Amino acid sequence: MIREAVVTSLDGAGRPHLAPLGLTGDAGRWIIAPFRPSTTLDNLRAVPFAVASYVDDARIFAGLVTGRRDWPLAPTEPGRPPRLAAALSHATLAVEHVEDHAERPRFLCRVESLVAHRPFEGMNRARAAVLEAAVLITRLRLLPREKIEREMDHLSIAIEKTAGPEEREAWSWLVEARERFYAPG
Amino acid sequence: MIREAVVTSLDGAGRPHLAPLGLTGDAGRWIIAPFRPSTTLDNLRAVPFAVASYVDDARIFAGLVTGRRDWPLAPTEPGRPPRLAAALSHATLAVEHVEDHAERPRFLCRVESLVAHRPFEGMNRARAAVLEAAVLITRLRLLPREKIEREMDHLSIAIEKTAGPEEREAWSWLVEARERFYAPG
Repeated sequence: MIREAVVTSLDGAGRPHLAPLGLTGDAGRWIIAPFRPSTTLDNLRAVPFAVASYVDDARIFAGLVTGRRDWPLAPTEPGRPPRLAAALSHATLAVEHVEDHAERPRFLCRVESLVAHRPFEGMNRARAAVLEAAVLITRLRLLPREKIEREMDHLSIAIEKTAGPEEREAWSWLVEARERFYAPG
Repeated sequence: MIREAVVTSLDGAGRPHLAPLGLTGDAGRWIIAPFRPSTTLDNLRAVPFAVASYVDDARIFAGLVTGRRDWPLAPTEPGRPPRLAAALSHATLAVEHVEDHAERPRFLCRVESLVAHRPFEGMNRARAAVLEAAVLITRLRLLPREKIEREMDHLSIAIEKTAGPEEREAWSWLVEARERFYAPG
């Protein structure tokens, strides 16, 4: 099972970095597999701890893939990366083992702690649509324009039917990023 | 904003009924709009309280639309409907006002309490795909077969990529219900 998280990692100077990543569950461990090259990859080699923030604010996923990186953080345990302030819960992960790979090295992590901050208030179809569109936006260079537009058109139905103001804002960032990518010149 | 909940209501004899429903937020109130006729509608007229269980177990949504109604419950406050035992959190809702309507009367509810039970552990694309497919299965009589099959084919990509065993089981129930509906005879 792959759960969507915002992973915070630290560089050697203790500066945090945020990345939206899918964590793969495998026999009680969570696997972080950042692409090479990436800041998360460099950071996990320097400081072998990560924090997975579990959020249901679609703006954060949409924001991170459209250059909006300045999301409020909150401290976790000493020596561990911070979490997103908006996290409904967070897991502190300790890297136990690294499997090297040409494209996506795998960091096998033990869960040190799982802490709840706020109640989950239900799934929302618009939020899921924002997440799907955010994945498409990260693949603008890889997928045909016709597929991107057709899929986003379809996802926009859930936005129209079930979004609140936050999901609408997140959606607007994704549409804007797509238009900018395809703009002439 | 519409959040997906499993709503429990009580009949006059105190028997609980479960229904997957989208709750609409409106100025601090939550609106339950059950179709006419429905058990939830009858129950809310008899006993003006509901409990919204917020779950991220896709099997419950897929199960409820495919005839699997026997999900474990747990008590909430005295005189209020029970919640799903699997709920990550639940809200107790008191009906304050009813707007009558030929198809979908609207019950405007005040939130009496919101209680967290378990930490949210991240969005999952397969779970969202199960929820979308569950909505399609409730519309088998209304939508063309070609559209149902095309959309489920597309949703199956997220199942293949990101599902765990529970999402796979939920998906199998939905595919089975679709096949049964289209089976000759």
